[in-house]
Amino acid sequence: MKKYIDAYRLLKKIKEKKPLVHHLTNWVTIYDCANIVKVLGASPVMAHSKEEVAEMAQIASSLVLNIGTLTPEFIEAMKIAAKSANKKGIPVILDVCGAGATSLRDRKSFELLDETRIDILKGNASEIARISGARVKTKGVDTSAVNKNMLRLARELAAKRKCTVVVTGKEDIVTDAKKSYIIKNGSYLMTQIVGTGCMAASVIGTFAAVEKDLAYAATAGLLSFEIAAECAAKVSQGPGTFKEKIFDCIFKLDKKAIDKMQKVEGKPE
Amino acid sequence: MKKYIDAYRLLKKIKEKKPLVHHLTNWVTIYDCANIVKVLGASPVMAHSKEEVAEMAQIASSLVLNIGTLTPEFIEAMKIAAKSANKKGIPVILDVCGAGATSLRDRKSFELLDETRIDILKGNASEIARISGARVKTKGVDTSAVNKNMLRLARELAAKRKCTVVVTGKEDIVTDAKKSYIIKNGSYLMTQIVGTGCMAASVIGTFAAVEKDLAYAATAGLLSFEIAAECAAKVSQGPGTFKEKIFDCIFKLDKKAIDKMQKVEGKPE
Amino acid sequence: MKKYIDAYRLLKKIKEKKPLVHHLTNWVTIYDCANIVKVLGASPVMAHSKEEVAEMAQIASSLVLNIGTLTPEFIEAMKIAAKSANKKGIPVILDVCGAGATSLRDRKSFELLDETRIDILKGNASEIARISGARVKTKGVDTSAVNKNMLRLARELAAKRKCTVVVTGKEDIVTDAKKSYIIKNGSYLMTQIVGTGCMAASVIGTFAAVEKDLAYAATAGLLSFEIAAECAAKVSQGPGTFKEKIFDCIFKLDKKAIDKMQKVEGKPE
Repeated sequence: MKKYIDAYRLLKKIKEKKPLVHHLTNWVTIYDCANIVKVLGASPVMAHSKEEVAEMAQIASSLVLNIGTLTPEFIEAMKIAAKSANKKGIPVILDVCGAGATSLRDRKSFELLDETRIDILKGNASEIARISGARVKTKGVDTSAVNKNMLRLARELAAKRKCTVVVTGKEDIVTDAKKSYIIKNGSYLMTQIVGTGCMAASVIGTFAAVEKDLAYAATAGLLSFEIAAECAAKVSQGPGTFKEKIFDCIFKLDKKAIDKMQKVEGKPE
Repeated sequence: MKKYIDAYRLLKKIKEKKPLVHHLTNWVTIYDCANIVKVLGASPVMAHSKEEVAEMAQIASSLVLNIGTLTPEFIEAMKIAAKSANKKGIPVILDVCGAGATSLRDRKSFELLDETRIDILKGNASEIARISGARVKTKGVDTSAVNKNMLRLARELAAKRKCTVVVTGKEDIVTDAKKSYIIKNGSYLMTQIVGTGCMAASVIGTFAAVEKDLAYAATAGLLSFEIAAECAAKVSQGPGTFKEKIFDCIFKLDKKAIDKMQKVEGKPE
Repeated sequence: MKKYIDAYRLLKKIKEKKPLVHHLTNWVTIYDCANIVKVLGASPVMAHSKEEVAEMAQIASSLVLNIGTLTPEFIEAMKIAAKSANKKGIPVILDVCGAGATSLRDRKSFELLDETRIDILKGNASEIARISGARVKTKGVDTSAVNKNMLRLARELAAKRKCTVVVTGKEDIVTDAKKSYIIKNGSYLMTQIVGTGCMAASVIGTFAAVEKDLAYAATAGLLSFEIAAECAAKVSQGPGTFKEKIFDCIFKLDKKAIDKMQKVEGKPE
């Protein structure tokens, strides 16, 4: 069932409110995560010292966590930041980057989920399957073992963890257990470069900073990012130029493109 | 009062001497900081281990510190590096990135200023106001609360701290308390991406490596960077391509462009 | 003596097998290292926590170490990862980035070489000279003091360390003591930006993941990277666009370009 998402309304709200989006993220794509938030019109801050993360989260409008280059100490800082964010009532997004690849990643993902309130849990199919308890082995950080029953699995996980679950892939799933969206936007080139997954989490974090319905916010964020990627792909000569054009295109995203290009399906419970 | 700055002379000197510019900087824009120094013709080195920073500073021609992603341990390494640089007599540039956002950032900025000799102190209006003791609350790392009396405040801070103070913004201020410059170059797009502030500090550090008059060096560096940004803006389709074109344009900056495009005012004491 | 290297065969094998290339690398060029592996069609993973590196190396097909922003703790994690890789029998590539600049870099390079099995040792002329025991002082991380007898020195080092030695420069040397190759590809622009040396190591690590003859693999990797750089230089307006175009060009590298453009000499023992 086709579903219209008013992503442009949220995009305008981001540009008006310029929410501060606090990140504790990986060292590989940290620039891209900051920059994608910035070109959306919001204000990124990357701060990971356990001595300041609680205070920084208090002035933020959302918190994005990404375990891509985790250490146990870094996860401790994430917990402090998340608890502070929980106290303030701002949404916490967790990208379980590489879950399934090592036991450290699994264990620390579960600790974060058990010890803090994660509002949006994001990963690719194999990462989310792992977090849901399904037996999948992730190879590194970018496999996307397709699971036939992924929508059901995501819904169950959302219900169990009382959060919104985002599963990225050729088609993305967003579900808060009550309602679900399937997003069919995006470009093949997104899978050919490093960073689109991480940036997607930051975009979701930015949209979640201005919209209380988190499944709606995540869907709006993802489709905006992926429409920008489609526009970028059209004017790229390859993955290098594609990467740069994403920033150009998301910066210039307008209501017409967002409304016309979006391919979202709503799924009843 | 219009003032001519012979930035091209310094740019030539950089290309001849290829000074080593040692950085302890943040993890977000570390590549851009290194690369902007490189395309200027100098030689960047990013080294932060407390076991080697003193030795690295001894072979460097300037030292750039940026607290954007600080931890207490990282600041300790900065102090060791700065003391080594002080001993050698090379200029130390401190970018108080995000000062005012958390008490850790304020406290560590003051420690660096109190325990080492900072030769050039750089920040945006709200960061510099904070360091000067004015009561301002920074929201994250990129607010630029304009202060009417910023020039006076910067001069007083320069006098008090016995250093050159650089305040970046739509118009930049450079002052060593005795003389002051206002730089009116730059592009709107500089404020739409992450990293231009950090790169500006690295450019200033590179110019300071070849010119003893640090206020002059900082002014020359800033105007060169901002003229390159103006050139880049003209050939960009948005913030993504703008970012890449900055490197192209600063690499090709010539005497004609620098002399013709610069908009600098000198202020008598 | 002109030598034909069937690099395209290896490139195809990379795209088919999608090997996981595990990195412990520096924070400056970490994105570029990951992305160059990705656009080659392989799967990069950057993981440095001592709690997970042994496990990650067990699912990888090669391991790339780069000491560019080393700390003693980081080197400990490298040793754990390298020992795990040694046990699995996958090739370990060490880029001795900045060796010679500080005693920490020298000491830690030697520790890695003495305590683990390094299969491919890579550096520029001054770094490799330093590791071979020659008295050279490196200025930062990008000097390339040319050594007349570099080929002899590289061969001796390869024999002594029982590894393949790669010396990058205007002409690159690859030798496993028994056979040697000189690669004359590349572009001047490679020396004008930060990151080409680090990316070269990652490319070598990716080719080494699919070819047991490591000198052959390193040569094939280097020439592919440098041919892509030559293609990128032709469509660039400067170092900023050049950087992005490298990714476009290596992504699209075909048999015709690789076979036609390669300039490799084989040296008998």
